[in-house]
Amino acid sequence: MIITKQITIETGGNGDMRDITSEVAEQVSKASVNSGTVTVFVAGSTAGVTTIEYEPGLQADFAAMWERLVPRNLTYQHNERWGDGNGYAHIRASLLGPSLAVPFRARKLLLGTWQQIVVTDFDNRHRRREVILQIMGE
Amino acid sequence: MIITKQITIETGGNGDMRDITSEVAEQVSKASVNSGTVTVFVAGSTAGVTTIEYEPGLQADFAAMWERLVPRNLTYQHNERWGDGNGYAHIRASLLGPSLAVPFRARKLLLGTWQQIVVTDFDNRHRRREVILQIMGE
Amino acid sequence: MIITKQITIETGGNGDMRDITSEVAEQVSKASVNSGTVTVFVAGSTAGVTTIEYEPGLQADFAAMWERLVPRNLTYQHNERWGDGNGYAHIRASLLGPSLAVPFRARKLLLGTWQQIVVTDFDNRHRRREVILQIMGE
Repeated sequence: MIITKQITIETGGNGDMRDITSEVAEQVSKASVNSGTVTVFVAGSTAGVTTIEYEPGLQADFAAMWERLVPRNLTYQHNERWGDGNGYAHIRASLLGPSLAVPFRARKLLLGTWQQIVVTDFDNRHRRREVILQIMGE
Repeated sequence: MIITKQITIETGGNGDMRDITSEVAEQVSKASVNSGTVTVFVAGSTAGVTTIEYEPGLQADFAAMWERLVPRNLTYQHNERWGDGNGYAHIRASLLGPSLAVPFRARKLLLGTWQQIVVTDFDNRHRRREVILQIMGE
Repeated sequence: MIITKQITIETGGNGDMRDITSEVAEQVSKASVNSGTVTVFVAGSTAGVTTIEYEPGLQADFAAMWERLVPRNLTYQHNERWGDGNGYAHIRASLLGPSLAVPFRARKLLLGTWQQIVVTDFDNRHRRREVILQIMGE
């Protein structure tokens, strides 16, 4: 049994991190599937998916980590060629990755208590993002 | 066909890396599923899952990489707000990611010869971890 | 319904990045599965899988990121013990991760327009790589 859902989020870009746990949990609870895995996938090459304890301190710490590791204002060949100034966003997204698989049982996500599913948009502008939720199970 | 198993590991935290390949392989070989994917997911926001050649040299190199990229003793807003001193552990876990999908065929994991499945616990103390193994296939 | 395919790629190592999107899309379109997820998994401990906008600028930027974060010429305990000089390649591969789950619907991958599936080989020599594509769906 496979159910494919799509959620659209409007982000501000610039590292905007969105907690989508309740949307994912709701789709899983509504699906007629008892146990299985939900694949969370963000379409696009400047955003990524992971889990985090979603609170303002860690949101700031996560952003600071990216600025240390993949600074916005280095010279990027992507920017030199295409002039869109978001080379850093592509590299951050590729390192973080676009997909996550979360198991569920009895229609409940098997997350830790302080573990939320988040989409981070690294692009340098407002974006509309399609996030695919694919529920597979029995 | 879906089989959900859970393994519990006691870790020392502080980057403790555990090779769970044999447990995963055993569950796959015992399941009445010939080919498919096993999703390995660690519940919690201060641990992650990946593959590595599990030998002491690389365990030390992996730990040194984390200390360079996400040092324990930076100032973290998470620590300022909550006082639990494990901001670095959350950020490392979010970057590494909590899940991994490993395909199998003829009840055998399709890993490379020197490729082991490992859980790394970044927290700053002893933890009991629930690792979900979800076997899906036919 | 599960279909397991394997593609073999010859790489130059040294960060050689290969776009395998067309091979993955072809296997998905040929499979008698309408919607589902394809798991892309690279066997081996010195290569990884992610998505990127596959163009020469970002290929150079991705390589430069790895050289900043996990430099080739640091001292690695792996190299000290085994003398094979590819400690950096193992660490990069473990951080990037070996697997990716990409959903599809109506036999089409749900990727963004500029989002390609790539295998990066970090090893310090030419390698033959087995990439597993496991298509699961209905």
